[in-house]
Amino acid sequence: MAVNIKPLPQLHPVRGIRLGTAAASIKKPGRRDLVILEIDTGASCAAVFTQNAFCAAPVTIARKHLAQTAPRYLLINTGNANAGTGAQGLYDAATCCSALAQLAHCKSNQVLPFSTGVIGEPLPVDKIVHGLPDACAKLSDTGWEDAAHGIMTTDTVPKGVSRKIDIQGSTVTVTGIAKGSGMVCPDMATMLAFVATDAGVRQEVLQQCLREAVQASFNRITVDGDTSTNDACVLIATGKSALVRIDHIAHPAYRILCDAITEVCVELAQLIVRDGEGATKFITVRVNGGASEQECNTVAYAIAHSPLVKTAFFASDPNWGRILAAVGRAGITGLDIARITLHLDDVCIVRDGGRAADYEEKRGLDVMRKSEITVNVDLGRGSHASTVWTCDFSYDYVRINAEYRT
Amino acid sequence: MAVNIKPLPQLHPVRGIRLGTAAASIKKPGRRDLVILEIDTGASCAAVFTQNAFCAAPVTIARKHLAQTAPRYLLINTGNANAGTGAQGLYDAATCCSALAQLAHCKSNQVLPFSTGVIGEPLPVDKIVHGLPDACAKLSDTGWEDAAHGIMTTDTVPKGVSRKIDIQGSTVTVTGIAKGSGMVCPDMATMLAFVATDAGVRQEVLQQCLREAVQASFNRITVDGDTSTNDACVLIATGKSALVRIDHIAHPAYRILCDAITEVCVELAQLIVRDGEGATKFITVRVNGGASEQECNTVAYAIAHSPLVKTAFFASDPNWGRILAAVGRAGITGLDIARITLHLDDVCIVRDGGRAADYEEKRGLDVMRKSEITVNVDLGRGSHASTVWTCDFSYDYVRINAEYRT
Repeated sequence: MAVNIKPLPQLHPVRGIRLGTAAASIKKPGRRDLVILEIDTGASCAAVFTQNAFCAAPVTIARKHLAQTAPRYLLINTGNANAGTGAQGLYDAATCCSALAQLAHCKSNQVLPFSTGVIGEPLPVDKIVHGLPDACAKLSDTGWEDAAHGIMTTDTVPKGVSRKIDIQGSTVTVTGIAKGSGMVCPDMATMLAFVATDAGVRQEVLQQCLREAVQASFNRITVDGDTSTNDACVLIATGKSALVRIDHIAHPAYRILCDAITEVCVELAQLIVRDGEGATKFITVRVNGGASEQECNTVAYAIAHSPLVKTAFFASDPNWGRILAAVGRAGITGLDIARITLHLDDVCIVRDGGRAADYEEKRGLDVMRKSEITVNVDLGRGSHASTVWTCDFSYDYVRINAEYRT
Repeated sequence: MAVNIKPLPQLHPVRGIRLGTAAASIKKPGRRDLVILEIDTGASCAAVFTQNAFCAAPVTIARKHLAQTAPRYLLINTGNANAGTGAQGLYDAATCCSALAQLAHCKSNQVLPFSTGVIGEPLPVDKIVHGLPDACAKLSDTGWEDAAHGIMTTDTVPKGVSRKIDIQGSTVTVTGIAKGSGMVCPDMATMLAFVATDAGVRQEVLQQCLREAVQASFNRITVDGDTSTNDACVLIATGKSALVRIDHIAHPAYRILCDAITEVCVELAQLIVRDGEGATKFITVRVNGGASEQECNTVAYAIAHSPLVKTAFFASDPNWGRILAAVGRAGITGLDIARITLHLDDVCIVRDGGRAADYEEKRGLDVMRKSEITVNVDLGRGSHASTVWTCDFSYDYVRINAEYRT
C-alpha cells in the first residue's frame, strides 16, 4: 500500500564503505535480517539516537562505543529490538560486537550495534553470531541495495536515496538507506537510517550537519505518534573523494554538502511516511503564520496525530471540522480562531475562523480523493512556519498492528 | 460493541427538573435529536466547558448566559455541532435560545444551548425551532430516559446513572445522563453530560463540587485523544429536597453529596469509554510511584493514547514492549527505567525495567483475552498516582470514522 514510491533507484557506491547482508533466521528463516556496514579507516562518524527513556540495549552500547572511538563497523539486525531486555540485553549486544570484532580484526568498541523488531524478547545471540561470517564474506561496495532490503521490518518496500553532486570541481556521493514503518514519531532521530558520503568532514562538523539534516527530515514525520525505543540515524564521511576536508561550518563546501545530505534525509523520511503502516495517502501538514516555529510544530503534530483527521483522509472525507478541532486543542495560548485560514491544496475551506463563503464541498472532495494532499493552516499571528509529513489511518494499520507478533 | 454495559437503569426523577424530547430531523428524520431540560426557579447551576480554542458557538453563548443569570432551560440538539461556523453560528445559537424563551415565557439568557454532531455545517435553525413545541409539550419529570436517548450521536447505547442517598435523614437524588463516543479526551469537561440533584447548594459551592467530580471522572478518560469543540458538563441543584441548603464546603453534608455526584460522574465517564467508537475492551491504566500526580497522568495518557498499545489490546496480544515504549516516550525527566514495574491485572510482566524472570507469555495472554484489563505501572520514584480509563482501537473505529459523514 506504499503511496507513490518508485522502485529503488541506483544506489551509488561510496568509496570507503562496504556492505554485507545475510539471512540469520532471527525471526523467520530465509529472510535477509543481518547487515554489516564496514567503514574504512580515517572516516568520521556522527549519530543521533532516540530520546525514548526506554532506549534499547544497542542504543546504549552504540552511544558508549561512539564516545570512545571512531567506528569501523555497523552491525544491524532486524526481527528483534533487544529493548526492554535489561542487563542481559546489554550483555547480548556487547557479545555480538565482540564476535564481529574478532572476525574483522578490530576492537569491540569499533563496532556499533543496531537492532529493530519486536520489543521485550531476548536477542538470539547465537543466530546473529552464526550469521556474521556469511555477511562478512559478502562485503562489497555495491551492497547498498541488499542492505536496504536487509534492514526492512514491516516496510513493504526497501528505501534508499543516492545523489552525486559537484563541489568545487570534485564529484561527491551521498547515499543513504532507511527503514520505517510503525512506531514512527522520531525525536532527535529516526527509526533506522544510515547515510554515507565520500566527502571528508571533521567529526564535530559532521555531527552539526546531521543534527541540521535530521531536524528538517526525520524529526518532521509521524506515522502513529509513537517514538521508538531503537531510533538511530548514522552519518559517515569517509574522506575518499578529492574534495578537501571540511573542518569547520564556515568552509564554503559545508553548506552545499549539508544541503545535499539534508535532501537525502528528507527524501528518506518521506519514504518512511509513504510506506507507513497501512498508508494509502501522503499528507503534508504546513502551518504558517505562527508566533514561533515551536507553536507551528505543535499545531502541525496535533493535526498529524489526530486519529479522527487521519481516518477522514483515509475515507477521502473533507471533514475539515476535525482539522479545526485539532488546531484548537493544540494548546496554543491566546489563539484567536477568527484569524485562522485553512486550505486543502489550493482550495480555501476556512477563512476568518469559519467556512469560506465560496467553499463548495465538491472542491474539498476533489482534493481529498488525491493520494498526495497538503493541509495548509495559517494561524494569522506571526511569520514562523513548520512542515510535518504524515499518512492516513486505515483498516490495514489496525490489521498490521493487531497481527504483528503472530 | 459496547463493553459490558448493562441496560439503562431506572433514572429517578429529580424534583424541580422536567425533560422533553422531540424528533426534529436535524441530520436524519425520525430520530430523537432535540432535548429540553427545564429547571425550576431557585435552583443553582454549575458548568464546565471544553478547553478547545475552537469551541463551538453554543459553548460561547452558554458561557455568556451562565455568567449573566441562573438558567431555566437547557436546549440540546444532536446531528450538528454548530462549531467552526463563525459569527453565523453565534447568531443561530442565540436565535434558538430566543425561540425557546418565547415559548417558555422566560428570558433568552435563561436558556443554555448545547449542540453535538458534525462540525462545520450551518445549524438548521428552522428545524430546531419547529421541533421546540413538541419537546415542550412532552416535558415531564420522568423524561430522563428519553433524554438519554435524545442526546446520543455515535453512541450505541443510552447512558444514565442514578442514585438515592441519605444525608442527615433526608433522601437526596442524583441523576445524570451523558453521551460519547468519539473525539473524546475531555479537558476540564466531557462530551455532554447533564447531572441534577434535588439537594440545595450555593452556586459557588456547586461549581467547586463539579470541578472536583469532573477532575476524577470525565478528565480521566480518552477514546482517541481528540478534545471536542463542544464538550460541556452541567450540574444542577434544585433545592427541592428536605435537606438544608449547603452554603459552604465545610458543611458536613457537602462531602457526602460531592462523593455521590463524583460517583455518578465516574460511572458516566466509564460508560462513555465502554461505548467508545469501536471499543471491544475496557482498559484501566493505573500509574503509581510517581514524583507527582501530573507525571503519573502524563504517563497514563501516553499509554492510553498509543495506537500501538490500543491495537495490541484489540488483538489480545500481550505486546508489553509497546507499553514500555509509551512510558519511555512520555517525556518524564530523569526517569530511571531500571526501577519500573509493569503488571497486567495481577500478572507481573516487567520488574526492574526488564521482563520478570517468572513471566510466561501464556499468563499475559490470559489477561489480554479478558474484556476488562488493568495496566499497572509503577515508576518507582515517589508516592503519587493517577488512573485513566480508555478502550482499544479496532477495525470498527476506522470504519465508524471513515463513514461518519456518509
